[in-house]
Formats: sequence, C-alpha cells, structure tokens
Amino acid sequence: MRTVTYGAACSADGFIAGVDGSYHWIRSTPEAQAIMAEYWQRIDTLIMGRKTWDIAKGYSGGGSMSGIHSYVFSRTLETIDQDGVTLVKDDAAEFVRELKRGPGKDICVFGGGDFARALFAADLIDEVGFNMQPILLGSGIPLFRDAGRRIDLALTECRPTGKGCVYMLYNVRHRASPRRAASDSRARTKRGRSAF
Amino acid sequence: MRTVTYGAACSADGFIAGVDGSYHWIRSTPEAQAIMAEYWQRIDTLIMGRKTWDIAKGYSGGGSMSGIHSYVFSRTLETIDQDGVTLVKDDAAEFVRELKRGPGKDICVFGGGDFARALFAADLIDEVGFNMQPILLGSGIPLFRDAGRRIDLALTECRPTGKGCVYMLYNVRHRASPRRAASDSRARTKRGRSAF
Repeated sequence: MRTVTYGAACSADGFIAGVDGSYHWIRSTPEAQAIMAEYWQRIDTLIMGRKTWDIAKGYSGGGSMSGIHSYVFSRTLETIDQDGVTLVKDDAAEFVRELKRGPGKDICVFGGGDFARALFAADLIDEVGFNMQPILLGSGIPLFRDAGRRIDLALTECRPTGKGCVYMLYNVRHRASPRRAASDSRARTKRGRSAF
Repeated sequence: MRTVTYGAACSADGFIAGVDGSYHWIRSTPEAQAIMAEYWQRIDTLIMGRKTWDIAKGYSGGGSMSGIHSYVFSRTLETIDQDGVTLVKDDAAEFVRELKRGPGKDICVFGGGDFARALFAADLIDEVGFNMQPILLGSGIPLFRDAGRRIDLALTECRPTGKGCVYMLYNVRHRASPRRAASDSRARTKRGRSAF
C-alpha cells in the first residue's frame, strides 16, 4: 500500500500561511532542505484540492514536475490542460483509496487543510509531518482543520532543523480494520518503530 | 525582572482540552513530570483569569498551594475568600507589569488562552513551553489565541518526553525597547543561548 503523507512548515500555533497567504516567515535551513529532498525521492504523486492548484499552477511550469504526477480534485473546474496533471471530478476519498492500492511510489497531500480534512475524515492519511517555525502568527490558514473525530498519532521522528525550527513526523494510527492493521504493521517494520 | 511563562500540554493541533474540557488524552510520563517538578521550583506565583479559577478552585483545597501565591483577574467576581489567593479587579496588563518588576521567583500563567492572549498582546509573556501530545483533537480549547500581532520566538529546548510526546520551550522575542532589550540579554546570559 502506498503511504499518503500530509505536512508542511507551520507556525508554533499551527498556521501554514498568514491570512493574506504570506509565508515569508518560513525559515529555510540546510537541514529542512535535506529532509524535503529525501522525501521527494519517496514520492511520485501529488494530490491537491482546487485552492492549492490555483496557487501551484503559477509555479513550476504550471504544476508539472519531472517524475511527479499531480491529481487535482475539483467539482467546479471543467478541464486542466497541463502535462502531468489530471483533473479528478469523482469523489476524492474513493479515488485516493484506489490510488493507494495501485502501483507507484508514495503520495503527497499538497497544500492547505481543506482537502486534507476530507482525507483525514476518510482515514486515508498515513503520515503527518511538519516543520514547526519559532513564531506565533495568531491567525492564518491552519495546518489542521477539524476532521470530526480525534486522530491518534505515533511519533516516529523529532529533531531540530536549525534557526529554531523543529521537525516532527508521525504515523497516523488508523481506525482498526484487519486489512489496515496489517498494512500498518508492514509500514512500521519497513521504516522501523518509533524510538519515542 | 521575574520571568512570566505560559504553557501547557497540548494536542498536535494546538488544543489544551476538548470542547467538553476533557484532558484524559494527555499522557503522563516520568520525563514530563520531571520537567514540571523542576519548573515548580522556579516559581512562586500563579496568575490566571476567572475561567481558569472556576476550574482550579475545585482542586488543591481551593487553589492554594504551599509556597505559591495565586492572583485571579476578574472584573465580575466580588470576592475570593481563600488563603494564598488574591482577586485583582484592576487592569491585568498593568498589574502584571508591576508584579514582574517586584521581588520574587518566576511567574506562571495558569490555564487557557483567553487571559494569556491579553498578556501576549501587552508583550508581558517571556517564555512559552508546551508538551505536544501525539493526537489531533480537531476542536477544543486552543493553547494560543490571536494576540493581534505576530510574535517571534527563540527555541531554547526541544526533547521527546516519552509516549510520543515532545516538549518545546521558547523565549519570546519582545518588541524592541532599550530596557526590554537589556532584560532579554540578561535572561539569555543567565540561561544560556539556544543551541538550535
């Protein structure tokens, strides 16, 4: 099963951008860049909602990146004419569930919390990572929105990444089902159990 | 100058309690207990708003603890008849500013984010610490509320505290003023600069 990861740089009060979308307060460090470079080797798929697509299409030649396929989930967009990008108008949860079962490398949930909330609610996110910045924004776009239920996590990694930032990585403890429990067990074995 | 600290155990999405006030999801570990025991040696004063007092008065013989004096800030309460507890009906920011200048050990902001927000807004909080629990609550009582401005922090400590929890301690970078800048400099020298 492909692992679906959600994460971002965030403020210490949990925002990924200011109310104006600003993110110039995010600190770039060699340690954080190394974590991201290693992570990009693990994935070949980005999934995102329409709002993130609206921002992403302005970058990287319209959102396409070598070796990465993007899926944009929207009921309102008519078409996306872009190599390496597929518009999905079907139910996101069902589509992502099938995507996870298929072949390929891991999957990254790209962007803000609205699309991620739907995936959390459907218990489709396996891993959560964030690089906490030493700032309280007070308001902005939250990393996490209410998924309607409590979600248990298991810390797998925690380390300073320079300039006062801290990187934390968690496995999501899925709601119990025989198949998911077996999948979790394999994932833990593959990457090692938490030392925390 | 006495240091004013604000902090709590919180979920990974920044809540200190559920919407129903529940906190049974907070994990107790020897490491977290040791941090708290060491911290309590540093302080002799608790400051809190009326909502926290309503909860605290039910514990510890009505909120009084040996060697600790509590100040409860409320414009609506008429009186508090309790040894070791003083009701303050004056402006909280001005009172706390004077309290910091006076003699004594350090000061702990006790409880939720409403009272802390006013102190953050007045730039009276010097230190922020939280023990992040491996859970997403989705909703509840937030650790941080919007203080109306961005607040820069400096990470001074970060370490796992067992059972998937991570403790982080930050100094607040105060808005520049000659006296505050000098005070910050002394505080850094006393406790050592961040290694992060």
